[in-house]
Amino acid sequence: MSKLKAAVVGLGYWGPNLARNFQASPDFDLVGLCDLDTRRVEKVGASYPGAQRFTALADLFQTAKPEIVAVATPVATHHAIAKAALEAGCHVLCEKPLASTVKEAEELVELAEKRGRNLFVDHTFTYTGAVRAIQGLVEKGTLGDLFYIDSVRINLGLFQPDVDVIWDLAPHDLSILSYVVGKRVTGVRAMGTSHNPRNFNDVAYLDLEYENGLTAHLHLSWLSPVKVRRMIFTGSKSSVIFDDLEMSEKLKIYDHGVSFDVSDVEKRRQVLVNYRRGDMRAPALDNKEALGTELAEIAAHIRGTGKAAALGADGLEIVRVLEASQKSLAKDGAKVST
Amino acid sequence: MSKLKAAVVGLGYWGPNLARNFQASPDFDLVGLCDLDTRRVEKVGASYPGAQRFTALADLFQTAKPEIVAVATPVATHHAIAKAALEAGCHVLCEKPLASTVKEAEELVELAEKRGRNLFVDHTFTYTGAVRAIQGLVEKGTLGDLFYIDSVRINLGLFQPDVDVIWDLAPHDLSILSYVVGKRVTGVRAMGTSHNPRNFNDVAYLDLEYENGLTAHLHLSWLSPVKVRRMIFTGSKSSVIFDDLEMSEKLKIYDHGVSFDVSDVEKRRQVLVNYRRGDMRAPALDNKEALGTELAEIAAHIRGTGKAAALGADGLEIVRVLEASQKSLAKDGAKVST
Amino acid sequence: MSKLKAAVVGLGYWGPNLARNFQASPDFDLVGLCDLDTRRVEKVGASYPGAQRFTALADLFQTAKPEIVAVATPVATHHAIAKAALEAGCHVLCEKPLASTVKEAEELVELAEKRGRNLFVDHTFTYTGAVRAIQGLVEKGTLGDLFYIDSVRINLGLFQPDVDVIWDLAPHDLSILSYVVGKRVTGVRAMGTSHNPRNFNDVAYLDLEYENGLTAHLHLSWLSPVKVRRMIFTGSKSSVIFDDLEMSEKLKIYDHGVSFDVSDVEKRRQVLVNYRRGDMRAPALDNKEALGTELAEIAAHIRGTGKAAALGADGLEIVRVLEASQKSLAKDGAKVST
Amino acid sequence: MSKLKAAVVGLGYWGPNLARNFQASPDFDLVGLCDLDTRRVEKVGASYPGAQRFTALADLFQTAKPEIVAVATPVATHHAIAKAALEAGCHVLCEKPLASTVKEAEELVELAEKRGRNLFVDHTFTYTGAVRAIQGLVEKGTLGDLFYIDSVRINLGLFQPDVDVIWDLAPHDLSILSYVVGKRVTGVRAMGTSHNPRNFNDVAYLDLEYENGLTAHLHLSWLSPVKVRRMIFTGSKSSVIFDDLEMSEKLKIYDHGVSFDVSDVEKRRQVLVNYRRGDMRAPALDNKEALGTELAEIAAHIRGTGKAAALGADGLEIVRVLEASQKSLAKDGAKVST
Repeated sequence: MSKLKAAVVGLGYWGPNLARNFQASPDFDLVGLCDLDTRRVEKVGASYPGAQRFTALADLFQTAKPEIVAVATPVATHHAIAKAALEAGCHVLCEKPLASTVKEAEELVELAEKRGRNLFVDHTFTYTGAVRAIQGLVEKGTLGDLFYIDSVRINLGLFQPDVDVIWDLAPHDLSILSYVVGKRVTGVRAMGTSHNPRNFNDVAYLDLEYENGLTAHLHLSWLSPVKVRRMIFTGSKSSVIFDDLEMSEKLKIYDHGVSFDVSDVEKRRQVLVNYRRGDMRAPALDNKEALGTELAEIAAHIRGTGKAAALGADGLEIVRVLEASQKSLAKDGAKVST
Repeated sequence: MSKLKAAVVGLGYWGPNLARNFQASPDFDLVGLCDLDTRRVEKVGASYPGAQRFTALADLFQTAKPEIVAVATPVATHHAIAKAALEAGCHVLCEKPLASTVKEAEELVELAEKRGRNLFVDHTFTYTGAVRAIQGLVEKGTLGDLFYIDSVRINLGLFQPDVDVIWDLAPHDLSILSYVVGKRVTGVRAMGTSHNPRNFNDVAYLDLEYENGLTAHLHLSWLSPVKVRRMIFTGSKSSVIFDDLEMSEKLKIYDHGVSFDVSDVEKRRQVLVNYRRGDMRAPALDNKEALGTELAEIAAHIRGTGKAAALGADGLEIVRVLEASQKSLAKDGAKVST
Repeated sequence: MSKLKAAVVGLGYWGPNLARNFQASPDFDLVGLCDLDTRRVEKVGASYPGAQRFTALADLFQTAKPEIVAVATPVATHHAIAKAALEAGCHVLCEKPLASTVKEAEELVELAEKRGRNLFVDHTFTYTGAVRAIQGLVEKGTLGDLFYIDSVRINLGLFQPDVDVIWDLAPHDLSILSYVVGKRVTGVRAMGTSHNPRNFNDVAYLDLEYENGLTAHLHLSWLSPVKVRRMIFTGSKSSVIFDDLEMSEKLKIYDHGVSFDVSDVEKRRQVLVNYRRGDMRAPALDNKEALGTELAEIAAHIRGTGKAAALGADGLEIVRVLEASQKSLAKDGAKVST
Repeated sequence: MSKLKAAVVGLGYWGPNLARNFQASPDFDLVGLCDLDTRRVEKVGASYPGAQRFTALADLFQTAKPEIVAVATPVATHHAIAKAALEAGCHVLCEKPLASTVKEAEELVELAEKRGRNLFVDHTFTYTGAVRAIQGLVEKGTLGDLFYIDSVRINLGLFQPDVDVIWDLAPHDLSILSYVVGKRVTGVRAMGTSHNPRNFNDVAYLDLEYENGLTAHLHLSWLSPVKVRRMIFTGSKSSVIFDDLEMSEKLKIYDHGVSFDVSDVEKRRQVLVNYRRGDMRAPALDNKEALGTELAEIAAHIRGTGKAAALGADGLEIVRVLEASQKSLAKDGAKVST
């Protein structure tokens, strides 16, 4: 089977990881690297003598003739670059969030369909062993009914200079939730506060309501003294804690079900609660690099032998929630439908 | 100095702790124990041969003649019992929350004033080494400007049969916040969900706004697979994490200030953020039992030689926030002024 | 069934716990408390109006007529007090270590047998849910072959004024190991260092060899900056970590077996090691107070309906290892048979 | 200043890290890569188009003419390769342990001196922010008198096919201890056990005595269910815990000094121990990659503008301790002088 010719556009923080994984993949041939900044192209390119170097998109398409283009540029440029790539006949793997607005994201999804090309969104978490294990637990009913989900994604990290914290951190949670829950968000409430001179919200709390009544709650912050990446999935039978900073026990499954036993309601009007406190289990997880798994599944998807976990429609859904959250922030936390 | 005669009313979970501390205190003489349930009185009383045992309040007042009565009964009964004690000429130490409604709490505060008796509220946390250290850091400006406070108080614990989770768990946070921040809450938003047949909210998120613009956010739950008691106080100069389940490092102070340096705004329109990442310090804390400290300060307050940390007015403030939260819950998270 | 009359001798740190548990037990009637220090007797006695108070052993035996005497005095006095109690016709529950020398311990075991009384040793750990779970895992073969055991029991704690650290800390480990392994120690090596003016060893390392070839290693210290209580039981199929300071995950069982596969030794001269890295499981444990379980089993033992986990012979075995360790310390770590 | 021409010999696990750091260094020019295995040379070489590829040492020296050769091959080959490189006029940076025997290590040290070339040993840890901070605390007297050092370096990791666990894991500890303590080891005791068919010790305990009376104790194992990398440096004034697997709090300094106060020895014959329990501090550490720092200091050393932290003599000292440990293992733990 011949390899698929791949190119990476945008060589800042994430692009070099894409380049490295394309290079290491048996399915792809890294043929081009592109960035507006010549020094970046030269620096990254030094490790990939087989890839041609570009500073202009048009040259990349014409000369290197990639079959798939990975877009790892700032969000504001996703739409233009992905559009150009699709129109040049390439498949596209776009960083998340897919675009800055629902309108732009919808255009990309439609354009991909019209041109018969695949639009993949780089929801890396959906290719990790941990998130796949959680999804499996939900699907198989191990958790019972999902009660609620709480996520804390906070750190004293790099400020994005031109967006609210929700555009920087929430896409991770939203892509995980979308994959695990498999339901649409119907309403969003977002409260944010700003403690920086540009007045972007650097702390935000999001409340999500799903079509099946489930709720999820996100704490997002650039101002925490410590980094935390912790999601709790609470269910009627068991619950899961996903701590992405834990090296050896990323996932803990608690058989701590609560069973409600209402007896003699008329007389005592009291819920009797029986607690069952069972074992905790931290399953062994596949710890392959997610990007490697992702590229393998994307190759299979393009070749018609498999299906990638995150397509344009999934990326659009996340943009929809982000845009609604932004509206709710502007309305001081009023609920906004999606 | 003669000892103050003390009695405990309500011998369920907390009452025996009060009895034990009155007994151990050099300031008090435990003269009476009272509970509607004779077996409880007998069982607890067995360890305190010097205390008389009662099942009726009136008998307690008349026979044991206590100077201070500690009330550790269910919330719904606080008002009636505290009122009776004040009218019998006793000082009162009431469990939190002080009462079920603002109206009741106000009545107690007024009655205490009218009768010239002291009304103390058992905000135990305000007598701990950890909370006092945090308060000191805020007061001395070590944290700089307080940016925001986040608290997680969740567990798979005992359901209260007849109230929302906010009445059970939030009083702890609210009393700590009131003591540390020293400002009034002006607005509350509360979102809750219920997963039990009685339809009380077993999960709730509270957003608090303070008169000085500070915000605090509380995650309260009876449905978590693990117990968490963690508060983050984020400031402009340093931040504090208070983890009450940590044995040796309850308090961690992070010199991870963020300083904003906007240069050449016209041209680059960009916030340049400098990060300072300094040391972390876990101070040695006084780990005396808080209840012992509390009783000593209450004795000093009664004798006019000191001032207790939590009086009726403080208890009233917490009830005010709880009542507003309950209203917000009923209005699907709409903001309610306090 | 009539209650057994019990007395506690020695009301320092541990004695009051014994008193409290006798009082709470349905099997015993606390009839006497004894200590040379009148103030201690009065202070502890105040909570047990039903128990008579003594400062002389002879009075205790004659007046209170206990059927079982718990001895919680300094080690040096165990022999004399236990002997007196056995000769007075009482069963004895003695703190660990049973005695200061093997000779004394042997005398007590013999005397108990001669008098037809039971001699129990307070190896509290052998009555905990955690240690019983470990013993079960070993017995059922879940761990496979036991490879080795490592224990760390260190802290900046109270110095015993008149013994080496091994007499203070090792009895805990030795009693757990004896119960879990069920084999005799055949050889001991001990290395210690002293950093205090009295020249008692405040740090020690013990190497134990068991009759079946198993080895165990203990790190004991009064000089650590933190408290650690951690035992690792490594086996061919799975391994267990017992961290007694962990609140919710005291026991972790790792399915991380190592299987050795030597192929073509002649040619490649190489051990090929296959790693199996499976799940970790933290079982729910019975967290009843061990002393309660212990008293129940002791009562059953006396009544002939059950068997207590730690008898005089078990206590003697621990003293034998301690005495051998002391000899090894004196010989700069030379191996000493037991 | 012209760059120093560097080559890497041995492209297994560690060699590629050396290549990457030489490439990234402003002080070096990576001119050659060498390994017996052609595929490894090709694979690693693909990322360094500027470096020539070799499978024979002689060709490397003759063609690429490196000024420094980094040796990252199996220990058994260090002597021959380093010798050849020194004789070819190159400086050498050799992986640890420097050689398989003291005799070989001594020869290399002498040869380097004779040829006027520098022999560096890759004690990477001595170039980390954490180890340098510990060394500084000891030097400045922050810890007071060092009481003892305990290290646990255990994991279910890769077995070395042809050596005892001490040759694989102890060099890390020994290089750290040598750097921090700055004293010679005078005696060693080692006890090991084997649970694999080749009969190499896969678990070992080492006791080290230093010329100044200090003792250190190492627990080394390939059989642990979890990875642990934890050293405790206990001192008279404060103590340090170095946990290399901790992301944000690698170093914790405890002001938990113990001060001994013997009063009235004649009468009471008792050591009175006063405990001071102060703050814990986790200092911010330089988290640059140690290999980068190391190469910069090696370049300075060669240029005569600085001094590298680990030279041939340091490497020889570690081999001396390892060889003595091996002898002690063979003598069932008898003390062996070094």
